[in-house]
Amino acid sequence: MQWTKVLGLGLGAAALLGLGIILGHFAIPKKANSPAPQDLDLEILETVMEQLDAHRIRENLRELSREPHLASSPRDEDLVQLLLQRWKDPESGLDSAEASTYEVLLSFPSQEQPNVVDIVGPTGGIIHSCHRTEENVTGEQGGPDVVQPYAAYAPSGTPQGLLVYANRGAEEDFKELQTQGIKLEGTIALTRYGGVGRGAKAVNAAKHGIAGVLVYTDPADINDGLSSPDETFPNSWYLPPSGVERGSYYEYFGDPLTPYLPAVPSSFRVDLANVSGFPPIPTQPIVCALGCPVNVSVYNRLELRNSSNVLGIIRGAVEPDRYVLYGNHRDSWVHGAVDPSSGTAILLELSRVLGTLLKKGTWRPRRSIVFASWGAEEFGLIGSTEFTEEFFNKLQERTVAYINVDISVFANATLRVQGTPPVQSVVFSATKEIRSPGPGDLSIYDNWIRYFNRSSPVYGLVPSLGSLGAGSDYAPFIHFLGISSMDIAYTYDRSKTSARIYPTYHTAFDTFDYVDKFLDPGFSSHQAVARTAGSVILRLSDSFFLPLKVSDYSETLRSFLQAAQQDLGALLEQHSISLGPLVTAVEKFEAEAAALGQRISTLQKGSPDPLQVRMLNDQLMLLERTFLNPRAFPEERYYSHVLWAPRTGSVVTFPGLSNACSRARDTASGSEAWAEVQRQLSIVVTALEGAAATLRPVADL
Amino acid sequence: MQWTKVLGLGLGAAALLGLGIILGHFAIPKKANSPAPQDLDLEILETVMEQLDAHRIRENLRELSREPHLASSPRDEDLVQLLLQRWKDPESGLDSAEASTYEVLLSFPSQEQPNVVDIVGPTGGIIHSCHRTEENVTGEQGGPDVVQPYAAYAPSGTPQGLLVYANRGAEEDFKELQTQGIKLEGTIALTRYGGVGRGAKAVNAAKHGIAGVLVYTDPADINDGLSSPDETFPNSWYLPPSGVERGSYYEYFGDPLTPYLPAVPSSFRVDLANVSGFPPIPTQPIVCALGCPVNVSVYNRLELRNSSNVLGIIRGAVEPDRYVLYGNHRDSWVHGAVDPSSGTAILLELSRVLGTLLKKGTWRPRRSIVFASWGAEEFGLIGSTEFTEEFFNKLQERTVAYINVDISVFANATLRVQGTPPVQSVVFSATKEIRSPGPGDLSIYDNWIRYFNRSSPVYGLVPSLGSLGAGSDYAPFIHFLGISSMDIAYTYDRSKTSARIYPTYHTAFDTFDYVDKFLDPGFSSHQAVARTAGSVILRLSDSFFLPLKVSDYSETLRSFLQAAQQDLGALLEQHSISLGPLVTAVEKFEAEAAALGQRISTLQKGSPDPLQVRMLNDQLMLLERTFLNPRAFPEERYYSHVLWAPRTGSVVTFPGLSNACSRARDTASGSEAWAEVQRQLSIVVTALEGAAATLRPVADL
Repeated sequence: MQWTKVLGLGLGAAALLGLGIILGHFAIPKKANSPAPQDLDLEILETVMEQLDAHRIRENLRELSREPHLASSPRDEDLVQLLLQRWKDPESGLDSAEASTYEVLLSFPSQEQPNVVDIVGPTGGIIHSCHRTEENVTGEQGGPDVVQPYAAYAPSGTPQGLLVYANRGAEEDFKELQTQGIKLEGTIALTRYGGVGRGAKAVNAAKHGIAGVLVYTDPADINDGLSSPDETFPNSWYLPPSGVERGSYYEYFGDPLTPYLPAVPSSFRVDLANVSGFPPIPTQPIVCALGCPVNVSVYNRLELRNSSNVLGIIRGAVEPDRYVLYGNHRDSWVHGAVDPSSGTAILLELSRVLGTLLKKGTWRPRRSIVFASWGAEEFGLIGSTEFTEEFFNKLQERTVAYINVDISVFANATLRVQGTPPVQSVVFSATKEIRSPGPGDLSIYDNWIRYFNRSSPVYGLVPSLGSLGAGSDYAPFIHFLGISSMDIAYTYDRSKTSARIYPTYHTAFDTFDYVDKFLDPGFSSHQAVARTAGSVILRLSDSFFLPLKVSDYSETLRSFLQAAQQDLGALLEQHSISLGPLVTAVEKFEAEAAALGQRISTLQKGSPDPLQVRMLNDQLMLLERTFLNPRAFPEERYYSHVLWAPRTGSVVTFPGLSNACSRARDTASGSEAWAEVQRQLSIVVTALEGAAATLRPVADL
Repeated sequence: MQWTKVLGLGLGAAALLGLGIILGHFAIPKKANSPAPQDLDLEILETVMEQLDAHRIRENLRELSREPHLASSPRDEDLVQLLLQRWKDPESGLDSAEASTYEVLLSFPSQEQPNVVDIVGPTGGIIHSCHRTEENVTGEQGGPDVVQPYAAYAPSGTPQGLLVYANRGAEEDFKELQTQGIKLEGTIALTRYGGVGRGAKAVNAAKHGIAGVLVYTDPADINDGLSSPDETFPNSWYLPPSGVERGSYYEYFGDPLTPYLPAVPSSFRVDLANVSGFPPIPTQPIVCALGCPVNVSVYNRLELRNSSNVLGIIRGAVEPDRYVLYGNHRDSWVHGAVDPSSGTAILLELSRVLGTLLKKGTWRPRRSIVFASWGAEEFGLIGSTEFTEEFFNKLQERTVAYINVDISVFANATLRVQGTPPVQSVVFSATKEIRSPGPGDLSIYDNWIRYFNRSSPVYGLVPSLGSLGAGSDYAPFIHFLGISSMDIAYTYDRSKTSARIYPTYHTAFDTFDYVDKFLDPGFSSHQAVARTAGSVILRLSDSFFLPLKVSDYSETLRSFLQAAQQDLGALLEQHSISLGPLVTAVEKFEAEAAALGQRISTLQKGSPDPLQVRMLNDQLMLLERTFLNPRAFPEERYYSHVLWAPRTGSVVTFPGLSNACSRARDTASGSEAWAEVQRQLSIVVTALEGAAATLRPVADL
């Protein structure tokens, strides 16, 4: 999981009723007389909830995390086979499963020349060499498959220079050093993880002529200040002193050589000299070091490697051309018990339970369910991105929603969901029916609301969903294809730890025992996430009416509008730019979404025809697509969603508007920058008007 | 109709069977027990064919062409009201109709200062002033509403210079003059219509420092060489000596100030200084002039004007969210009896006949039928383009096909159809059942094949469809939205005339009498086009299985592939670029399209479920979308279709490949230009692979 890119706030959806038909040419026997209207079957749902087994999840995790399985490594390939074997199992498998392989550009440390960081004494002699590997505390930190800590995609080089402490390596941090009169040219910047993205630290540093960047994990950021061996793993969940976070320092996502094209062997590849998004200067993650000067020696190599996705499908009985996608990545940095195996262990348990019902003939979903195990996510969401590039139209036309479960358990306190507004209510419906782990018999929903909540003008106090950044494989689905997406996990009680993320993140200490002893003994949080995801999948695949509540977008649009009015209104007025058309567009959307909701409730009271419901469901499914505009932010690779593109501007509103305003702020009226503000305003108004138009009765002009 | 942009070759589609359901909430009474499978009703079809009345078409044309109705003129507005009144008629109207208005940038000659072209004698005195208007031959060429001949969007200016004859104003023509050692700097180029686009003449001329451009219509190009008054209108269909072709010289289409945005008042407008696509130098169409030097005085003005589209809809009974779009523009240059009223006269007759059946309660289509009367087409397809910008997603998700009938009758010899391959077979089915006008009792199909034919590897000798350029309002639908489109007309026997287009095109002589006396006495060709369009509309809107034959794309792809292999294969090999992946992709498409055809035939033999057929129909409808890639040719505004984008390269193959090769041809291996060839190759391979994927059984991985 790429932690450093996760952003702000969002919302969700629900529904019921139905009828069943069987498709002939998919070789499913046509029933003599088709059954009563097919809809979500609460008995099946109950069965699935019961059969999701914590012990089996634990055994899955043990197997998945037994060995390091770095992307494209032999063990990663073994896991491809494990997934295929599970998904093709005659008793508990899916209808079909296959692996698809891409040839992608990855980055690894050299086998022959390990990356080295030496501290040089006053006489020029090396007085200290930083550890090249983590200390072998549990016997799992040694061995050839444990990749040395490194900054993937950082260029090779051997810069030497004085060490300068640059806090988190944010632009402000370097500015601060400048104002203090500290010479940065030719120095080595020592930065700590957090604050800004990994790659950004090197990008910012290079702007000031810095020659190299070191990145370390500060115990204050991840260990609640604890750092001694007896206070850390294997004695607690905290990171041992020698732990070092690995990670990708690539600024974009997808295979760096094939933007917008699938990385199949025949695809055009950008010349390495023209690749953008790599860190500009040698960079190396280390254990906290002090004293200077420093020699940094980075010998990373770029290699074309084969990386596979594994896909499995349960064919829909009635609407096989509607896909509910559920996925997680498979590759880890080392053993990756938490990241990503905690998610994959659940993926396998869910596919087993659903597969068993399928093979027994007790159940087949109304819509198709697609399971995905993505490759090379740690290097930049590569497997999922290449998949969306290869099947762009097919997925965009047919996908109901994408559900992502990467790290399924950060900690045991509460559920945490990120997603787009239409998925809120289906998550709420699911979590209200599932008992939360731990003491008491609260529902997951009732426990969740204690940790993350907001006051909704429509619903009152509700759990708050986070919005989707680019932290995991949901990114291409929401930003590039405009598919309603969500990411589900169990996480911390923030009053109990200030850890930026679970302490052993991307280190060789992220092991099975770590999860089993400290993160989720008993695996009840894993089970809770499995049940939540399972219930959401069943509701999306079996409900006669799609449980995507598009009217929940109205709250987001209204809050974006209010922020624009309050924080930008005066500024815009000074430059005679009116928010009037935006107000009208938001109001139109609200009205049409509400009216559509009314029509649905009316229909639900009657006995609607399947074709009639299909037409309504298409309106619900395709709403998210109407927010896409590939020409809105051409410079932001893949980001086409006018509501969720990256926001650099400080005002929490429509990103194009926010960013354009922050760029125009200090320029004169009539500048290019202010023209761009007007263009971005028109782009979002046109998108909202277009969205409202798709929600109207389909035969209205 | 913008004549000068029409290109190469294309193909088409067919199908049958069904079942009927009535939608409740659209206020259509739900029948107690729904009727037998609803499908194309041959009796209804027959009735429509019989009721399409040549006399009524003639009367429509008389009314439509009574006065000049330049875009946004008062008479243009009157016609908006006429259309609304017809489409809201209680006996013969549609379910609903409305006008929608855009604020667009048009260009007109000044009222106060007419554009002038003077020929200057040796002593510097004016020895001849070109006619500023056409001669008032029939009493219809005078009056304030007859706009002076001008080049819309040409800049104002009063250049003076020696007259240089530059043939058609193509790049080669100016190169030729250069090689002859003729000084072009500061001259006035005299060019004749045809060969290249209007705007291109000025663009090419300006590159050589030419100060102004004059454009005339050569009798050899349009009058079969005849030019004396007694040989021309009103004595024949030929253009009188004083006739001058008007036209738009804008290089792109859509409102010049709002690319990719609807031209609603609130939309962002590009600063006039940043508008691209206008002719760079003063330009003026004139009557053939000789002698030099010349003073050219152009006083054109740009004006923001309101221009309306009129839309009318017949709501579908079963699938109201599937649209069959049928349209034509309303605006003319002067009376515009042929262009565009010959099409609008048919539009009104078709809506009357269908509207009457609707109001009588004898018929309602399975899918929705949308009638459109576009504004400001003559200035650059403005009304239709703004419409597609405003409702991009809604139209892209739901439109089955777009049918355009602009100039419906150029001449009486034969049908002429331009369209994408999936529409071929529905046009064939329709035309085989309709008697052709004129002697004998051939079908329109059998007559058509005598004039335009090709030998198809699949079907043997068949009528050949032309491919769609940007000559009329179908352009935004096919190129920007990827909607299967066609343009239908009756046209010449090329053995009888060499006229570039009907002689009075865009002149003040394009009047009702011209049509009534010379172009189509009796209006039987108009009736033939009305019947063809009507039959196609009914087949697309009522057939249970959509009559779009996607496998007919295979022939196009195969021919493009063969051209690439034969004409580019060696060159590509020299630069070690393989066509292998393209071959594989084409083969995959052929196989999947054939397999889908098989599944459809099988289904048609049984009694398929409506939902099952809907899923298949979605595959057929959406195939064309899979050829869109908005990032393929960012410099070609609106052109996103990787098969039909403009081809500048000489090889008749995939345009991106053809164009990239012609640019790379003379550069070294490894150049940017050759990288672009590889990128374009990957773009088309990815599109074809993606298209094939959408044709596979929907639940196959």
